[in-house]
Amino acid sequence: MRILILGGDGFCGWPTTLYLAERGHEVAIVDNLARRAWDVELGANSLVPIAPIHERVATWHDLTGQSIGLHLGDLQDYAFVAQVFSTFKPEAIVHYAEQRSAPYSMIDRQHAVFTQVNNVVGTLNVLYAMKDVVPDAHLIKLGTMGEYGTPNIDIEEGYIEIDHNGRKDTLPFPKLPGSFYHASKVHDSTNMHLAGRIWGLRSTDLHQGVVYNVQSDETNRDQRLWNRYDYDGVFGTALNRFCSQAALGHPLTVHGAGGQTRGFIDIRDTVRCIELAALNPAERGEMRVYNQFTEQWSVQQLADRVQTVASTLGMETTIDHVANPRVEKEEHYYNAKHTRLVELGLQPHLLTDDTIRDLLVAARDYRDRIITDQIAAKVQWK
Amino acid sequence: MRILILGGDGFCGWPTTLYLAERGHEVAIVDNLARRAWDVELGANSLVPIAPIHERVATWHDLTGQSIGLHLGDLQDYAFVAQVFSTFKPEAIVHYAEQRSAPYSMIDRQHAVFTQVNNVVGTLNVLYAMKDVVPDAHLIKLGTMGEYGTPNIDIEEGYIEIDHNGRKDTLPFPKLPGSFYHASKVHDSTNMHLAGRIWGLRSTDLHQGVVYNVQSDETNRDQRLWNRYDYDGVFGTALNRFCSQAALGHPLTVHGAGGQTRGFIDIRDTVRCIELAALNPAERGEMRVYNQFTEQWSVQQLADRVQTVASTLGMETTIDHVANPRVEKEEHYYNAKHTRLVELGLQPHLLTDDTIRDLLVAARDYRDRIITDQIAAKVQWK
Repeated sequence: MRILILGGDGFCGWPTTLYLAERGHEVAIVDNLARRAWDVELGANSLVPIAPIHERVATWHDLTGQSIGLHLGDLQDYAFVAQVFSTFKPEAIVHYAEQRSAPYSMIDRQHAVFTQVNNVVGTLNVLYAMKDVVPDAHLIKLGTMGEYGTPNIDIEEGYIEIDHNGRKDTLPFPKLPGSFYHASKVHDSTNMHLAGRIWGLRSTDLHQGVVYNVQSDETNRDQRLWNRYDYDGVFGTALNRFCSQAALGHPLTVHGAGGQTRGFIDIRDTVRCIELAALNPAERGEMRVYNQFTEQWSVQQLADRVQTVASTLGMETTIDHVANPRVEKEEHYYNAKHTRLVELGLQPHLLTDDTIRDLLVAARDYRDRIITDQIAAKVQWK
Repeated sequence: MRILILGGDGFCGWPTTLYLAERGHEVAIVDNLARRAWDVELGANSLVPIAPIHERVATWHDLTGQSIGLHLGDLQDYAFVAQVFSTFKPEAIVHYAEQRSAPYSMIDRQHAVFTQVNNVVGTLNVLYAMKDVVPDAHLIKLGTMGEYGTPNIDIEEGYIEIDHNGRKDTLPFPKLPGSFYHASKVHDSTNMHLAGRIWGLRSTDLHQGVVYNVQSDETNRDQRLWNRYDYDGVFGTALNRFCSQAALGHPLTVHGAGGQTRGFIDIRDTVRCIELAALNPAERGEMRVYNQFTEQWSVQQLADRVQTVASTLGMETTIDHVANPRVEKEEHYYNAKHTRLVELGLQPHLLTDDTIRDLLVAARDYRDRIITDQIAAKVQWK
């Protein structure tokens, strides 16, 4: 299958590209290298060193003989998008190419506006390029479980049947995003659903949980293929950040009470979910929604698990409860459905002590690269 | 009360400004005169002549002695917004300053992107300026009934209590917008709701129906105060357009089957609703939603009523069913609640034959100004 990976140089995009190439698909990357630029802007870095995109692609070619197309440009540039779609003629388009950090979107007004314009306009351009160039292609778009927030009812996969005053309809599940980033994904979902209804485009909106783990079977083959390991307060996710804190002997910092519960997924499952979605395309006019995570954890539970495994490696850590920089419920009901990808064949990698140990060891091996004042989450929601 | 009217030169904004000034409020207009520029872009015009904004404001001053502040600039320019908020210190902010035509947003990709960026960034800037400058002010934002679309259940005012698997929550009513314009209003609602939750801002989201009628008691005082009368296929709304077609002796063009049912409101009620919202501000942290319309009509019913009244004026017309340029249901269930503004004191002007007659007479008086090839709705959704 010809699959275009928008954002193929990023944390999820790069392992997805290699996984799909390994599975025999014809893949090409579109990226504007924004994620690397944000490291420069923030003064942050990846815990493990990562190669430039050209070297990544060349290495894969050296090891496998497979060519990965590389198109450097910005989705906000429609002429560029239309040209890539016209030449590559994708059957599936995997769309990771968005600003994906909630704290980054909350730095200030400028970052909020940037995040929403970048994400919304990029996706609008993708939708128009599909309509104009490849109307039968299948858009596989990364959304987030954070679109739903934490309602007091079970979270369904995208839609809910509502029985109201004696009548019924199945409607988009109500959304309660918790940051301007999360809101941008809600905007995208709204626009994609509309594009399905009016133009008959096919799309899958993957409401992904928090991704943990770093390397996949493919990125592990060669150091020049390594995936980025984010540990900082802006782009790092909870589990990865806890592991780097443990490796430094720093306290694990839990925001507030720690009862915040979210869906989590191993990056090795992320890449498999993308292939499952591609192999089972949505119908024309359908925006299909899958909740893409495999387990629920509270932040406190994750910190406890990291602390336990770290001690087996001789890393003794404490857990600190710090003031929560976000505005969010710290104790709440949370029960989100996530059966549809399993029905398609996903066999989850659940969070094992071995995975936590691998993350801790990698952090210990590269602890000299950690910029310690980047670890704390400093961006305030208020 | 100090009330800032964003978009105070437009079809709803101008009569609102005069009504609030007449009622003794201290009012100022913010406008970038975009609506006049779109007439130039499209080669369209107002059926009745309208004065330049400076002349409008000067006329009101001559007639009443009241000064209306005038700030010309763009909401996408944050420095401008913050400066106006800092000097005027509004207690209420009425926000009409958006691209408000569904067909305009569907002209092509560029107009879709413009509409969403203009509307979303403008509103984000308003929210940030409120947080930074006037955190206790009350935002009264114009949304649209079109955010809801046509679900198969009763439409509530903004929120719905959902009973699901034995648990309950009251959540934002699911949205099914029918164009990129309508979607932009959904995006705004999402961002405003978030700003309430994280910053404690107070807002009222008015989901307004289709506005008909043109002049208010205040705009009728002097020809230089006249409000614009849109009859064209891009900015004109159904009833006003039918009246101008009847005045020309053209067939009234109903799109498709004509069973499309919507909420409608007289512009004299629009201005009163705004004052009612301002006098009864939302709580801190609350985004209150009112469905701002007074009656439901199908497009066919409106055409029939115009035809009947027109014949009493000697204007004999036919009704043509033309291919629907939009993608929408032409027969559907529609029952939308609209009690909360009445509870606050709204006494609706229901659609009378006299109102239709006034619109027909105005169209007949100015029929020489009608650009006939602007009447048909040519923008295709597909």
